[in-house]
Amino acid sequence: MPNTNLAAAPIRMPTGFDVRRECRSARFDGPTAGLAPGYVQGNLAILPRDWADDFLRFCQANPKPCPLLGVSEAGIPALPALGASLDVRTDLPRYRVWEHGKLITSPSDVMSVWRHDLVSFVIGCSFSFEEALLQNDIPLRHIARGCNVAMYRTSIPTRSAGRFHGPLVVSMRPLKPADVIRAIQVTTRLPSVHGAPVHIGFPEAIGIKDLGKPDYGDAVPIEAGELPVFWACGVTPQAAIAAAKPPFAITHAPGCMLVTDLKNNHLSLF
Amino acid sequence: MPNTNLAAAPIRMPTGFDVRRECRSARFDGPTAGLAPGYVQGNLAILPRDWADDFLRFCQANPKPCPLLGVSEAGIPALPALGASLDVRTDLPRYRVWEHGKLITSPSDVMSVWRHDLVSFVIGCSFSFEEALLQNDIPLRHIARGCNVAMYRTSIPTRSAGRFHGPLVVSMRPLKPADVIRAIQVTTRLPSVHGAPVHIGFPEAIGIKDLGKPDYGDAVPIEAGELPVFWACGVTPQAAIAAAKPPFAITHAPGCMLVTDLKNNHLSLF
Repeated sequence: MPNTNLAAAPIRMPTGFDVRRECRSARFDGPTAGLAPGYVQGNLAILPRDWADDFLRFCQANPKPCPLLGVSEAGIPALPALGASLDVRTDLPRYRVWEHGKLITSPSDVMSVWRHDLVSFVIGCSFSFEEALLQNDIPLRHIARGCNVAMYRTSIPTRSAGRFHGPLVVSMRPLKPADVIRAIQVTTRLPSVHGAPVHIGFPEAIGIKDLGKPDYGDAVPIEAGELPVFWACGVTPQAAIAAAKPPFAITHAPGCMLVTDLKNNHLSLF
Repeated sequence: MPNTNLAAAPIRMPTGFDVRRECRSARFDGPTAGLAPGYVQGNLAILPRDWADDFLRFCQANPKPCPLLGVSEAGIPALPALGASLDVRTDLPRYRVWEHGKLITSPSDVMSVWRHDLVSFVIGCSFSFEEALLQNDIPLRHIARGCNVAMYRTSIPTRSAGRFHGPLVVSMRPLKPADVIRAIQVTTRLPSVHGAPVHIGFPEAIGIKDLGKPDYGDAVPIEAGELPVFWACGVTPQAAIAAAKPPFAITHAPGCMLVTDLKNNHLSLF
């Protein structure tokens, strides 16, 4: 976290606006987990207009892995519903630029590759529901261990839309039974950030052979008396884009999310 | 079901009022499961005034096993909030009369033993949430098999109140993981009829040694890929009364509930 003011704010916690400003001025280019507590962070996917319609339908058809928080006009880098003066070209810490499914660069802004046919999609992220779980005193092992959440490709197919298809990717958190019940209640209230779990208890029933070998992120142990709980994961749309190999795409770099002006507490259905 | 009109209504389904009228006129004295679909059924407990205060505090302290739908004035057999012209002395199919914890008689009305110091308690019943689960196409094995739900005394203590204390009694339903998630959502909305489950998955963690040997009701098999799901059960207050051995008490006979004018769908929190 070189040359950043984010951790040093003497009076108030940083807001989503603060994080975006630090990213835009290139004073911050690291992971956003834990920054701007209370603010919604989102996955970013940017596609050319002639791929965007299929992707929008893919998200609509698969709302649990792909809950849309915002979609831009073509060529317009603003998303006013998600943030004041937000510019998706500069306001994330780091990006990935893809051509035909191949990673080309990982720049800290995408001004030089911006095009007037690009549509930006912001998709809800598990950081929001993890904040709600922690506020309910439900311990999350990957956070306690300081590692990434364990993610797995499942045998559950997404609903395809045009050129986009692929397996549902899930994240797994081991929880005690009483915490499973409370976690289902808490995340049910949050459909715009993946909502309720998709499975509990039997990894093999959803095509996961070995919980110790996640397809993404880090393995965490499951202790006696705990159940593995599986949520739909925002890596699902990333994997669908990688498989579809559009000629051009931009995504956030892993862990380097768009921090919005929305508040996590305001996402709750009730 | 001798000499009853309840099953023969040619035009409309029987209401709670219909069932109570048939009970009062002694044309019906059987189990109420499945009668008056959509109407709330309740457990009945009647105690002398000098025991009623402790029992009210016991219910207040243990709302998951003892969700109170109504409490009468002492000596008054009506519960106007639960039913038009309801009379708890005649409107259930069958009763149990207890003295010092010992079962004395099982009459079809309690007119001859009524006293002017008796307080009636009506406690929510799992029939209401089972109806909601079935409406959500969640299969319930004990219903499919035509037997009683399996119930177990746990190692979880209730909160004691005066002379009332004892273990939490739970009912168990085996469900597939996706149905577990949906069942938690559905029953969370229904706190007045036991609400969300209290445990999932590990019977031994709550003091149940053998699911094949329930303490009340009938065992049902758990199939591969299913989890046992445990709800707080209305047998808990019955067991607490049996243990406290008040000099006089009246309860409903097993399965012979009070059918009210309340609608199950109206119990839902949201």
